[in-house]
Amino acid sequence: MTARIVTFSSDFGTRDYYVGAVKGAILGLNPEVNIIDLNHDVPSHDILAGAFVLAGSYDLFPSGTIHLAVVDPGVGSSRRGLVVSTERHLFVVPDNGLLSLVYQRETVSQVISIESEHYFRRPVCPTFHARDIFGPVAAWLSRGIDPSKFGPPVTDYRRLTLPAVTRTDQGEIEGRVVHVDKFGNVITSLRAEDLPGRDGAPGSFICSFNGRTIRQLHRYYDEGSSEEPFLIVGSSGYLEIALSRRPASALLEARRGMKVTLRTD
Amino acid sequence: MTARIVTFSSDFGTRDYYVGAVKGAILGLNPEVNIIDLNHDVPSHDILAGAFVLAGSYDLFPSGTIHLAVVDPGVGSSRRGLVVSTERHLFVVPDNGLLSLVYQRETVSQVISIESEHYFRRPVCPTFHARDIFGPVAAWLSRGIDPSKFGPPVTDYRRLTLPAVTRTDQGEIEGRVVHVDKFGNVITSLRAEDLPGRDGAPGSFICSFNGRTIRQLHRYYDEGSSEEPFLIVGSSGYLEIALSRRPASALLEARRGMKVTLRTD
Amino acid sequence: MTARIVTFSSDFGTRDYYVGAVKGAILGLNPEVNIIDLNHDVPSHDILAGAFVLAGSYDLFPSGTIHLAVVDPGVGSSRRGLVVSTERHLFVVPDNGLLSLVYQRETVSQVISIESEHYFRRPVCPTFHARDIFGPVAAWLSRGIDPSKFGPPVTDYRRLTLPAVTRTDQGEIEGRVVHVDKFGNVITSLRAEDLPGRDGAPGSFICSFNGRTIRQLHRYYDEGSSEEPFLIVGSSGYLEIALSRRPASALLEARRGMKVTLRTD
Repeated sequence: MTARIVTFSSDFGTRDYYVGAVKGAILGLNPEVNIIDLNHDVPSHDILAGAFVLAGSYDLFPSGTIHLAVVDPGVGSSRRGLVVSTERHLFVVPDNGLLSLVYQRETVSQVISIESEHYFRRPVCPTFHARDIFGPVAAWLSRGIDPSKFGPPVTDYRRLTLPAVTRTDQGEIEGRVVHVDKFGNVITSLRAEDLPGRDGAPGSFICSFNGRTIRQLHRYYDEGSSEEPFLIVGSSGYLEIALSRRPASALLEARRGMKVTLRTD
Repeated sequence: MTARIVTFSSDFGTRDYYVGAVKGAILGLNPEVNIIDLNHDVPSHDILAGAFVLAGSYDLFPSGTIHLAVVDPGVGSSRRGLVVSTERHLFVVPDNGLLSLVYQRETVSQVISIESEHYFRRPVCPTFHARDIFGPVAAWLSRGIDPSKFGPPVTDYRRLTLPAVTRTDQGEIEGRVVHVDKFGNVITSLRAEDLPGRDGAPGSFICSFNGRTIRQLHRYYDEGSSEEPFLIVGSSGYLEIALSRRPASALLEARRGMKVTLRTD
Repeated sequence: MTARIVTFSSDFGTRDYYVGAVKGAILGLNPEVNIIDLNHDVPSHDILAGAFVLAGSYDLFPSGTIHLAVVDPGVGSSRRGLVVSTERHLFVVPDNGLLSLVYQRETVSQVISIESEHYFRRPVCPTFHARDIFGPVAAWLSRGIDPSKFGPPVTDYRRLTLPAVTRTDQGEIEGRVVHVDKFGNVITSLRAEDLPGRDGAPGSFICSFNGRTIRQLHRYYDEGSSEEPFLIVGSSGYLEIALSRRPASALLEARRGMKVTLRTD
C-alpha cells in the first residue's frame, strides 16, 4: 500500500527553516506525497498541547494517511522514535506521550521502535530527528515500506498522565484547564456528561473558576453574552468557558492547569 | 465538473486543531483535492478583514477553484451557510458578509442556502460548522455535486457596509483605515482616483491622518523615506500610508476605522 | 522538463492576502503545481533571515524543484529579479542577496535577469512583484519554459556580507549571533571546527557572550541544564547557545548581531 497524504504538526513555528527542511526530507524521498500542515505553532516543548492538536483532527483523514507529529524536547536523548499503526492510520512520532489521546481512542495494532539506520538521512543530527529520522521514515512508509522494517515491536511506549476529572468529598466534580485556544476559549478536561442536574439547564449547576461563578450553558457562542462567561460544549466534547466574540481567557486570567469545578446548584 | 483546488482561509489561527480538522473533513471525502492555505490569522471574528483577504486573491486562481472561507462569529445561530457561484469560482461561506467585496466585483449566478443535512458530517457540532458543514460541502462540490443539491436558492444574502469614501462640505475627501498589514502599511478605503490635483504630484494634495500631514506620493516603498510617511498606491488599488522598511502604523498609531482625509493643496 | 514542486518562502506573514495572491498567480498559470510553504514569517525586510531559511532546506528537495523566495524591501526600485540555476534546482528571487548562502555552496550554472514582460501579470504593480512577476515566472518555469526566455544572463548579482568569523590579536575567535530561533536558541556564525582544544571537552574552551561565560558543549538539548546556558552544534552546523526546554535568548538578552567569542580555557 502506498499513501499520498502525510499530515505534519509540530512546535517548529513559522520563522525558521525547520518546517521546510522536514518537508524537503519527505519530498526528496517521495515527491508524490501530499503534505498537509495541521499546524506548527504548538507551544515549544508542549507535548500535551501537541497531543490535543493531533487528537482533534487525525481521525477525519482518509484511511492510509500517515501522521507525522513532532514535539520533541528530548530529541537526541535515549527517547525512542515510534511508528504506530492503528486500524486506519500510521503515526510517526517521538515516544514521549504525544499519542496519549490516540492510544486512548484507537486499537493499536503495532508499535515499532525506529532503529534501522538504513532509512535515516545521514549523518543524523542529534538536535533534528524530524529532518533526519521521522521525516524520512514517513516518506518511506508512504512508498509502501512495511512498518516492521524500521525496527522491533515494543509495548512499553509512553503515555502522559492526562488532566483528570475527580469527584471531591463535597460532591464537586473537579477538572482542569487543558488549553486556551486562539479565540480565548478556555477548554477544560470536563465533559458534557460531567454536568450535574438537568442537562445543564439554568439553575441546575454552578461552575467555579478562578473566584468567579458561571451558571449558564449555551449551545453556541453568540447565544451567550460578551460580558458574562458561560459554558459551552466544544467541538471535541470538552466543556469550555467562553464569551461571545471576546476572549474569556483574558477576562478570567485563565491558564492551563488551573482548577475548574462543577456542583449542583 | 470536478475541481482539484480548494482554497482555505479562516480566523482559526495556527495553534489549535481547527485548521487540521477542516482539512481532514475535506480530504476524508475527497483525498484528491489540493487544499491551498490562503491564511488562517485573520483577526478573530473580523469578517471585514476576512473579506479583504479573500478579495485580494480569489480571482487569481484558475476557473473551477472552490474558495472555502470561514470567519464565523455567529456559528450555530440562525445565520445561514452559502454556496455562491460566480462565473469562474465557487465559494462556501457563512452568510455574514464575508463575500461583500466579491459581490461588488463579480456577477453572481446563484446563491444556495446550505440546508441538506445529507451532506453534513453528523452530529453537527453547533460551534464548528467549518468541520461539520462547510468543509464537507466544499469536498462534495469538488467531487462534482451540483450546488443546487445543497439547498434552495436565496437572494437576501448579507453584505457588509464597507468603509465609505465621502466628500465633506469643505471639499475634502474622507476615507477610513481598512487594514494594517504585516509590514505596518496603513491601508485606507481611498483609491488613486480620489487624489485631487495633478496625479498626486508634490504640492497637489494634502493628506491628513491622526494629526499629521502627508504630502508625498511614491510609486514604491524604497522611493520614500523611512522617517516621513508618504502615500503609495497599494497592490489592491487602495491608497496606503507607508514608510520605507519601517511600520508606518507604529509611528502614526494607526488602527482600523481611523479617519484619513485628502484635500487640494 | 516540467516541475511539480514550487517551494515558497517570504516575509509576507499570515494575516494578509499576499501569500494567497502569489499562490493564485502560480496556480492560475499551472494548476498542477504543488506549492510547498517553507515559511512566511521571516521578519519584515530581513534578507539575511530569509537567506538562512532557504539555506536550511533547499537542498533537501528533489531535483527540479523551483524555489520561490521573496523578501524584497526594494520592490519596484531598479533592483532586478533573477532566475538562478544550480545543478539540481531553480531559484526565483529579487537580486538582493537572498541567495548569498546558496551561491556559497552551489555551482551556479546560469543567472538570468528577469526582463521579458511577456511573462508578467499586467499591469505590474510596483509594490507586489511576487504576485505580478516572480510567481508567474515560477509558474512558467514549472511548465517547462527555459530560464533563458526570461531575459539576459548576468554575472554581477548581489551577495550579502555574511557575518564573519574572525581571529583577534588575543587569539580569540569572534563570531556573531545570526539568528534567534522559535525556541530561543541563539544561533551564531561560529562552527564546530572553531572550538579550540579537545573537541569541546569541558575545560577546553571558554565562550563569552553578553557578559556571561559558557563552558559546556552538549550533543543534544536535554543533555544540558535549563538554568546554565551551554553550547550545542545545531542542525545547520552552527554553534548555538541553548538551554534545555527554555529560551536561552530571554535569559541572555540575545539579539542578532551581538558578539560571541571563543578562547582556549
